Amino acid sequence: MSAAVLDGRLVASKITECSISSVAELTRNGEQRTLYILSATSDPSSTSYVQALLRHGARVGVRVNVERLDPGSGAEEVRSALIRASDDPSIHGIIVQTPLPPGVDLRDVADAIAMDKDVDGANPHSLSNWISGGSGFAPATASAVIELLDQHGIELEGSRVTVVGRSSVVGKPLLHLFLNRDATVTVAHSKTRDLAAATRGASIVVAAAGHPGLITGEHVGEGAVVIDVGTNFTPEGHLTGDVDTGSVATKAAALSPVPGGIGSVTTALLFRNTVIGPTARPLLPL
Amino acid sequence: MSAAVLDGRLVASKITECSISSVAELTRNGEQRTLYILSATSDPSSTSYVQALLRHGARVGVRVNVERLDPGSGAEEVRSALIRASDDPSIHGIIVQTPLPPGVDLRDVADAIAMDKDVDGANPHSLSNWISGGSGFAPATASAVIELLDQHGIELEGSRVTVVGRSSVVGKPLLHLFLNRDATVTVAHSKTRDLAAATRGASIVVAAAGHPGLITGEHVGEGAVVIDVGTNFTPEGHLTGDVDTGSVATKAAALSPVPGGIGSVTTALLFRNTVIGPTARPLLPL
Repeated sequence: MSAAVLDGRLVASKITECSISSVAELTRNGEQRTLYILSATSDPSSTSYVQALLRHGARVGVRVNVERLDPGSGAEEVRSALIRASDDPSIHGIIVQTPLPPGVDLRDVADAIAMDKDVDGANPHSLSNWISGGSGFAPATASAVIELLDQHGIELEGSRVTVVGRSSVVGKPLLHLFLNRDATVTVAHSKTRDLAAATRGASIVVAAAGHPGLITGEHVGEGAVVIDVGTNFTPEGHLTGDVDTGSVATKAAALSPVPGGIGSVTTALLFRNTVIGPTARPLLPL
Repeated sequence: MSAAVLDGRLVASKITECSISSVAELTRNGEQRTLYILSATSDPSSTSYVQALLRHGARVGVRVNVERLDPGSGAEEVRSALIRASDDPSIHGIIVQTPLPPGVDLRDVADAIAMDKDVDGANPHSLSNWISGGSGFAPATASAVIELLDQHGIELEGSRVTVVGRSSVVGKPLLHLFLNRDATVTVAHSKTRDLAAATRGASIVVAAAGHPGLITGEHVGEGAVVIDVGTNFTPEGHLTGDVDTGSVATKAAALSPVPGGIGSVTTALLFRNTVIGPTARPLLPL
């Protein structure tokens, strides 16, 4: 058995096409959409991500407005910038790059992001909203996992899902998105004693632990769907996921690789959220 | 095998003794603690719960201040009352009785509750805080489960826990409290296809589904610890949990019953939170 590839780039293209056609319509009405990025870091991976967002914005027709604060800024400066962007009617989406300056916690400033511009689901009110199954944006990476599965017609309702990893931006939000879709969800993590016991019975395994090669064939049941959300860099600087593709592909029915999986869907969703707003409807499956 | 009883009343007594001695100290300093309850409902179970809180307050030495709004009140009236109570330095804890008036959603008004008075963890900022393992109050019923287990010396770290039920006040907060304690957590619910498969491998099973008799011996592994959080009423008006005690007691090592389990711990915690504040330290085990 060799796993089918769940291609994130295909899904991202489809989402981006939708955004482009929405932008065309807005342009006819004389409207311009703008994504605002607050950056107070010189972290190289953040810098290259911002470059990628600038390129994607140019492709979609969304203006990307990067405000760079001093890496020594305090919480009040960050908050003020977010309040200005929230109040600015020419801005439609707001994201905050991490790491923030020392002593500034995203949780303490993110409630300054207007809910309807909170395209990466950072505001605690957004969290409280979508945890309860209400509207509001969830973190884009977590949403990208659901979108990738939906677009490939993989049923979530009644499925058994194991999420490996419990970060605030992926594991925890994802578990709620799966719960809201009626999946039975297990969360495993670095302190889980028998990881394979927690993953082998799952029909969907999401690897979001940040450990290269953590998930191998022995962790995966026959015919499972495996989504790799790992974002690790090899000493040579290559992007690699959490899944040992070789051994997993012999057991899984389908596998979303890194690179070529979740990352591009995440970017596409940030722009879709900026263009279409919080009422964005799910797309039909591929 | 017959399960040991995890007695909630014992734990509640211990917490209450602590609160009483803290109140004695505060009284020596001329301080009086007050729990404020906002009620805009004539629901009989809410009414009897408020009566129980009044009795408990009298026992602990905490004033209980019940503000009754008209059941036809709007969100703005509820918010205004919560803001007044938050600004009132003579009030130390704030809880909101549900159901709220039609059209008023607790999520939309709870951010008016000052974080340091949010003794039942209703404010979305509290949620965002403790989900991330930070400080802040979690909903008292969910906290009571953890407290009951801790007080009986049951290890959470590395354990496999299944929570049955995904409500905003018990199941969802509880899953995060267990995750913060390094348990591997599964959440099952009404749409779970094979409930026994999700519960049998767990060393701790929490029943919080609101279905009398849902959890039977076939759902429980030998030697598991079972916590019943069900609050159901029989046609005769008797309180009953979600666990079929007879069959579960033959397999479980320990069982927290209803009544006599979580309920009294929850009440004791609301008052401890009001007396000691958000910095309340866990007690030593019984």
